[in-house]
Order: sequence, then C-alpha cells, then structure tokens
Amino acid sequence: MATKYKIALIRHGESEYNKDNRFCGWFDADLSATGLEEAKNAGKMLKEQNYTFDIAFTSVLKRAIKTLFIVQEEMDLHWIPVIRHWRLNERHYGGLQGLNKSETAAKHGEDQVKIWRRSYDIPPPALELSDPRSATNEAKYAQYDKAVVPQCECLKDTVERVLPYWHDVIVPTIKSGKRVVISAHGNSLRALIKYLDNVSDEEIPELNVPTAIPLVYELDENMRPVKHYYLADEAQVKAAIEKVANQGKAK
Amino acid sequence: MATKYKIALIRHGESEYNKDNRFCGWFDADLSATGLEEAKNAGKMLKEQNYTFDIAFTSVLKRAIKTLFIVQEEMDLHWIPVIRHWRLNERHYGGLQGLNKSETAAKHGEDQVKIWRRSYDIPPPALELSDPRSATNEAKYAQYDKAVVPQCECLKDTVERVLPYWHDVIVPTIKSGKRVVISAHGNSLRALIKYLDNVSDEEIPELNVPTAIPLVYELDENMRPVKHYYLADEAQVKAAIEKVANQGKAK
Repeated sequence: MATKYKIALIRHGESEYNKDNRFCGWFDADLSATGLEEAKNAGKMLKEQNYTFDIAFTSVLKRAIKTLFIVQEEMDLHWIPVIRHWRLNERHYGGLQGLNKSETAAKHGEDQVKIWRRSYDIPPPALELSDPRSATNEAKYAQYDKAVVPQCECLKDTVERVLPYWHDVIVPTIKSGKRVVISAHGNSLRALIKYLDNVSDEEIPELNVPTAIPLVYELDENMRPVKHYYLADEAQVKAAIEKVANQGKAK
Repeated sequence: MATKYKIALIRHGESEYNKDNRFCGWFDADLSATGLEEAKNAGKMLKEQNYTFDIAFTSVLKRAIKTLFIVQEEMDLHWIPVIRHWRLNERHYGGLQGLNKSETAAKHGEDQVKIWRRSYDIPPPALELSDPRSATNEAKYAQYDKAVVPQCECLKDTVERVLPYWHDVIVPTIKSGKRVVISAHGNSLRALIKYLDNVSDEEIPELNVPTAIPLVYELDENMRPVKHYYLADEAQVKAAIEKVANQGKAK
C-alpha cells in the first residue's frame, strides 16, 4: 500500500463549555482563551512541518470554524475555499446539552453518564422540538427538513450522518488531487476514524482525539489508510489525550 | 420601483499598506490595528441595525477575508457560507504595487500618479511574468490560465472582470432569496457601483467608498437599484471618504 494522499484532521481547541465541563454538542460555544492559543499552535505545527492545503472542510459550529481560521492565519492560507457543513458537527448531546458533566455525574451516577458519553448505540435523552435548545429553532438549520436535524445522537448516529459527507464530498475532493484539512469535533472525527481504521463499536468510544494537534492520515489510491500520526511529540499527545479523557468524571 | 432585495457592500478596513501609503493592489497586505477595529465597528453597525445574511462573497485577499470574518464574529454568523473569488480582488496595480504613493508622486509628479490612480482606462505599467510580484507565481492563482491573471489593470479592466462574477454567481444567489454581503475592495466595489448606478467613465474614478462602513443597496425585481445608503451618520461617512480620497497626495 503506497501513500497517494495525505489529509489533516484537527479537533477544535478548548471551548468555553469544555472549560466549564459542560455537555456542548450542537450548542455553539466559543473557544476559550486556551482554545485560541491551542489553535494558533496547531497552525504553527503545520507551518513548521511545511504542510499546505488547497481546501478546508469544517462544521457550522464556531469553535471548529474559528480554530480553522486561526490555523489559516498562521499558515497564510486565508484564501483557500472553506466549506462548512452540519454533517461535520459534534455529536448532538440531546437533553444533556448545557448541563455540567460533574453535576450530571453526581445526579445520575458516573456509570450512567459514562453510558451516555461512551456507549456506541445508546443515545442520551432527546430534546423536544419545542425546547429552546433544539437546533430546529436555529437559522443555520432552517433550510433542512426537521426530520434530518437530530434532537440527540449516539455515536452510531453520528457515524451514520458523517459518512455520507465523507463519501459524497470529501473523497471526490481528495481524489481530485486537492490537499484537504478537516477542522471538526471529538465525535465527528471519531466517526471518521472508526470508518478509516475499521475500529470496533466497543473500542471506538475509548479512542480520544486530543484538541488542536493535527492528525495526519496517509491514504492509498483506494482511500484506505497507510498510516497516521500526530504532528507533535508523544508526550504532548499523551498529555492532551489525558486532558480530554478526564472530562465528565464527577471529581 | 419597489425594493425586492437588499445587499450590503463592505470595503475592507485599513490595511498595513494603506497605513504606509503604499500601492497595494493584489499584494496580500494584512489589516492594520485600525483596520481590525474598523471591521469590528462594521459588524456592530450591521448587528445594531438588525441585519443578517445567508451567504457572503469576498476576494482571495486577506484584508477583505479578515474584515468579513470579524464582521461575522460580531454578528454571530461564522456558519454562513463564504465564497472567495479573485474576481472580487482589488484592482491590480501592476508595477506600482509595493511603492509608496507619496514617493511615487514626488518622483513621477502628482498628475501622473493621479492618472494611474484615477483615469478610467489608462493602466499603470504592467508587471513582467518573471517579476516576483506577479500573481502568476502565487499558489492561489495557480489553477488559472496565465492569460486570465492580470499583470496590471485600469479601472475599466477591473469592471470587466468583476461583472461576469456579479452576473453569473451573485445575481442568481440574490434572486434565490439569499441575503448577500460582499466584502471587497475600493475598486472592485467601484466597479460594481458603476454598473449598478450607471456612473459615467469620467465620474467613477472620483467616487470614494469609505472603509468598513456597510453600504446597503436596495434592488428591485430586475436587480436595478431603488436606493442606497451607508449604515453610519453623514459626518462619519464624510470623514471616512476624505481619509481615503487623500491617499496618494505627495503631502
């Protein structure tokens, strides 16, 4: 298997909700000061290692869009096309959105929260359409049929709505020879990695992507992974993974 | 003539080259600190006056892209599609790019500089393809035939390359009902205004669009202007116009 294509995946920097340890999902939280700094470092890593891109894909959530913009700023790549799409959004956390993870763990038990957070196919409680938190009330989803806008998702649901975008839009772009960067979220990237590396339903919830450390996948002509690696040293990656893995503990 | 559509035009905030009084054209100058502040104010004006947009168009030059991003940030509109295209770029200033306007005026005479800056159909000296300043050497124009990438432009040339984009891309978008914002440059906006308001070849070079004050055009069903106005009071607009009109004097 020879490498034919290289893509870079970036999980957005820390958000205000990460910082406050709240379930975020489709809530459009901003980056924290740390997150802005992390995004800047991601851009620097890519620049220092002579990466460049022809096109970028991101979600419709500002924490991913801003992470990408800061990366573009560092790489002097403001001009490349940036395509935003809800299919790259974070997993929809349903009724948990906005709640504090530790408080939720204290109330429902750490095991229940672990199930909601880390089971593959058990969704959290769904939002009602009338809930002010429902995405159906937001201008950015107004063009879509209400049936397609989720009110909650398990990771399996996220995988199922990310993959059509990968196959229909991103793969043809990569195959056209364009160098692609994707700025997205913990679970939309998990969804993609599950597909690429054929990770089992049991293992995928335990796979943690650190924030704002570019993850490069080398792909062969059939779009199968040859290898993947982070653009940071092992200790940095390990520390960053531990930080995200520890979220949601009752403490 | 009844208003059917409204579009907003924004000239980017002050760039480092504006600040240094240098001919910028297609040189990819960054915003100055003042320019960043101006962009923020433009976003605030739009927000305070309850504007919103479904899609944005801009050039491939970072001073326009960043102005737009800051406006999006102020309006909480990170998520809208942003389409970048070179046809919305500033006028290409050819061999003058990078030169100081006052020094050029002192050397060639204020009249000659006025001709280069403000005649409708006399272009400045062209860049050679081999000139490191030539856009043909830049990744962002690599996909285009060299014949289409200008080495210099008079305003007439700019009008002729802006209008196909207006007719082919922006008009159909407006007609589809989408609320459009365009973040561009002094001369690409002049080109558009010349067409919309049928301004004469003699008058258009004297028309000055101030930086970062949103200019709203109301259009009828045939895309003809009903009226236009700035989202700032008269004194603000006048002061801002004087500031840009005074550029290029020998001082």
